[in-house]
Amino acid sequence: MNFTKMHGLGNDFMLIYTPTTPDFTRLSALAPQMCDRHTGVGADGIAVLYPSAVADIAMRIINSDGSIAEQCGNAMRCVAKYFYERLSGLKTHFTIESKIGVQPVWIETEAGVATKVRIDMGPPILEPARIPLYLEGDRAVEQTISVAGQSFTYTAVSMGNPHMVIAVRDAAAFPVNEWGPVLETHPLFPNKTNVEFVTYHSPEEVTMRVWERGAGPTLACGSGACATVVAGVLTGQTARKAVVHLPAGDLLIDWNEQDGHVYMTGPAAFVYDGVWLGK
Amino acid sequence: MNFTKMHGLGNDFMLIYTPTTPDFTRLSALAPQMCDRHTGVGADGIAVLYPSAVADIAMRIINSDGSIAEQCGNAMRCVAKYFYERLSGLKTHFTIESKIGVQPVWIETEAGVATKVRIDMGPPILEPARIPLYLEGDRAVEQTISVAGQSFTYTAVSMGNPHMVIAVRDAAAFPVNEWGPVLETHPLFPNKTNVEFVTYHSPEEVTMRVWERGAGPTLACGSGACATVVAGVLTGQTARKAVVHLPAGDLLIDWNEQDGHVYMTGPAAFVYDGVWLGK
Repeated sequence: MNFTKMHGLGNDFMLIYTPTTPDFTRLSALAPQMCDRHTGVGADGIAVLYPSAVADIAMRIINSDGSIAEQCGNAMRCVAKYFYERLSGLKTHFTIESKIGVQPVWIETEAGVATKVRIDMGPPILEPARIPLYLEGDRAVEQTISVAGQSFTYTAVSMGNPHMVIAVRDAAAFPVNEWGPVLETHPLFPNKTNVEFVTYHSPEEVTMRVWERGAGPTLACGSGACATVVAGVLTGQTARKAVVHLPAGDLLIDWNEQDGHVYMTGPAAFVYDGVWLGK
Repeated sequence: MNFTKMHGLGNDFMLIYTPTTPDFTRLSALAPQMCDRHTGVGADGIAVLYPSAVADIAMRIINSDGSIAEQCGNAMRCVAKYFYERLSGLKTHFTIESKIGVQPVWIETEAGVATKVRIDMGPPILEPARIPLYLEGDRAVEQTISVAGQSFTYTAVSMGNPHMVIAVRDAAAFPVNEWGPVLETHPLFPNKTNVEFVTYHSPEEVTMRVWERGAGPTLACGSGACATVVAGVLTGQTARKAVVHLPAGDLLIDWNEQDGHVYMTGPAAFVYDGVWLGK
């Protein structure tokens, strides 16, 4: 099986392109073994690319535990760079079909190389029932959640996948591994949730660390960065356009006032092409 | 650059075969980037294979920090399997030139596939001056070392590289990450040292965890397993032939009475073939 290893700000994926319909059952079963960082390829997840009837290309993300992700902005930037450089004939604007719908993509280039990718991440979903989150009302802004004897103030946002954004004094030093798993599985979120621990420095600048649902502590999460700025706007902490600092680099997030969509601009990188030798 | 990812009990390596003399300066400089598990290939180290004037093949191990390792049994099993299946024309007995000399290798096979590799790891070096270790006398058996307010009883053995073997009540639960780095860099060991935390269950069975010099907490260390059984014999804890349990599987170690050499038998596995896309 041929694959390509890529990463978006250290959030790393095995990209597998199949010109026919992928065998998702088999790929999900293989994911834990292939994603193992010592005995396998080592990756946060698998991004599968295949032909789409409604967009230029289709993609699905398989988490390292074999579950299917609803959305992953970093993976989508990788998929966009791959499609631009290897499949599209250097189209700088195209659409990608993901589990949540068809999304447009813009490529910033230099000599045929995609330096940055801009993605329309769609409008945020704020109604608790649609996140989903067991809470009355039409928004979940600065709510209190209690877990293991500790209270946190969170704002919940769905970007196609659920996010719980929690402002903390120092995101860089926060014990993400301790609180991430208990918040991810809190019964208030029936489909579990991604958890972002963020520090708002100024209206244009945020630091974020993430615990990803089904994947654990990853270096970056694109949809989490979007949710972070949406939550920042809702709580008066950021402007609609802000840079989110992640452990491996920056993302520019723009919650556009005209169409209400969130746009994310950031890098993606090729690491190597591989041929899997397992069964 | 072409490479092959392999692992020996979860101790994983990028194998790079060059038919000419390798550019070690360049590979050492690239090692930290290539070994990074999120933005690079991800590996404990790089195993370079190249033609030898004195053996069937030559190898050198570059640690993830760019330093050259003196010896690595797990990497040698990977190199032996690679050489057997891809370069030798299915020779089941051959020699490998490593930094410490020429070592014979035996391959156990099934239908042209190497299932296990037996390596002559040479005689252990017990004289402190040759380990090297600042201690009077001809052996360092059950010595006391103090570090950060704690005392440990260790036996020191070189298998071409220095090892400090420390018996603990429960190796599986021991805080390796806490004590490994301070013991690795203890001033008694002028070239630093690998550190093994071991629990002797019976004369034929040991559990071991390792802190590798220059690489940190790895899942297995072949020369460390050899040092563990040598230390077990010297302290009356094991027979000359014992199975060492590592987090990812077992190694059979035999400190041969006839020739005084230590023989290690264990598995190696191919993961994938890759083409590095960096500079």
